[in-house]
Order: sequence, then C-alpha cells, then structure tokens
Amino acid sequence: MPSPSATQDSYPYQNEWIWSKLEKAIARTAFDAALGRELHEVIQETKQKASQIKQPSDLWDLEHSLTQRRKEIDRKYDYRSSQLTLVFGNLLRESRLGEEDLRGLREDKLESIRSYAKLLAEMDAA
Amino acid sequence: MPSPSATQDSYPYQNEWIWSKLEKAIARTAFDAALGRELHEVIQETKQKASQIKQPSDLWDLEHSLTQRRKEIDRKYDYRSSQLTLVFGNLLRESRLGEEDLRGLREDKLESIRSYAKLLAEMDAA
Repeated sequence: MPSPSATQDSYPYQNEWIWSKLEKAIARTAFDAALGRELHEVIQETKQKASQIKQPSDLWDLEHSLTQRRKEIDRKYDYRSSQLTLVFGNLLRESRLGEEDLRGLREDKLESIRSYAKLLAEMDAA
Repeated sequence: MPSPSATQDSYPYQNEWIWSKLEKAIARTAFDAALGRELHEVIQETKQKASQIKQPSDLWDLEHSLTQRRKEIDRKYDYRSSQLTLVFGNLLRESRLGEEDLRGLREDKLESIRSYAKLLAEMDAA
C-alpha cells in the first residue's frame, strides 16, 4: 500500500530502503516462500540425481552441483534491506516469485524491483 | 612369491619399494578392487541418504559428507610405490582387503603391510 507521498518523493532510491513494518512482513513472507520453493527444488533434484548414480563420476558431479547450488543460494538470498529490491528483482526475473507475492510494497519499491528484473532479462537476452 | 634372498636382505625397507612386474600386477588388482568396493559403498550410502532427505540441512549434510569422503578417498588411495605398503596396511586394518588379495607379494612387503596394520590397530585402541 503506497503512501500518498511515495510517488512524489524526489529521492526514491534513498527512500526505498526504508521498509515499513507491514512491508517487512510482506518481504519476509515472499523471501521465505521463494527460498523454501528453491530448496524444495534442490531436494527433489538431489533425490533424482542420487537415484541415477551409476559410477563414481556421477557421485562427484552430484557433490559439485550441490556445492554450486549452496553457494548460489547463499548469494541469491541476501536478506539485507539494502539488497532486497535487487533480490526480489532477480527472483521475479527467475519466476521464483510473482508480483502478487509482493503486493503491499510501496509502488516505488515495486517499480525498482520490476526495473531490475527487466534489466536482468535484457542482459540475459544480449 | 618371495625370492630366496628376500628374507636375507639386510635393507628390507629400501628393498621393499622395488616391485616386480608380477607384484605390480597383484598390487594394482588389489588396489583397484578395494577402491572399487569403497566407491560402491559411498554410492550406496549416498543413494540411501538422499532418499531420506527431508529438510535443507539434510541436503548440506549430504554435500559435506560427500566432500569429506572424496578427500578421504583421495588421501587413502595413493598409488605411489613408495606409499603402497602403507596404503595396503591401512586397507588391511580397515578390512577393505584381506591378505588373500595380496598373495604373491614378497614376504618382506607383506610383513611391512601387516606391521603397519597392527600399528594402526594399536593406535586406534589407545
């Protein structure tokens, strides 16, 4: 729910780091849900890969992919308020969350999240 | 098959690093078989652990244990002739191979392997 002054603010990029109590709750829920879904996905992938192991190289491939996934998840899910719009932009780009999960954030934050998602999509396409 | 001079050699610890063609073949077979069995064991353990993953911490426990096992196996299976009696002593101690797998090595080598296995057992018991 954007405050009436939100769109008039001349310093949106400074202001967007201020998260109201409600916004923090929305952000936490969206963040945890996306992280939970991604972890669930890694668990399913791991079970499947492990069930298909035939030779030692498959074993070390699994280890390597788990290490990569752990590092990637650690990097991606950074719950610092200074990083949150970037984090959500990336998750939006990866379809790990939808705009409906972020409903209730101030419009300037949503705009920043959308812009970052768009930028990432353009970079991927380049 | 020990050569007649083997037990008379006054420098067994130097001499034992000389491996005849037959001994090399025996060592290679025993080494590969033990390594193959251990890798098979890790594969079975991994399949079982993966099938029991319920939460993310189980996932990272699996990754950690795989990394540990890989490092341990790398350290343990060192096929340099200077290391082989120690490697076999350790595998004997761990019951990963039996003396029958080493049949055909010179008696001084077997003695050195047995001694090292015994030493490790004593250290474990201490």
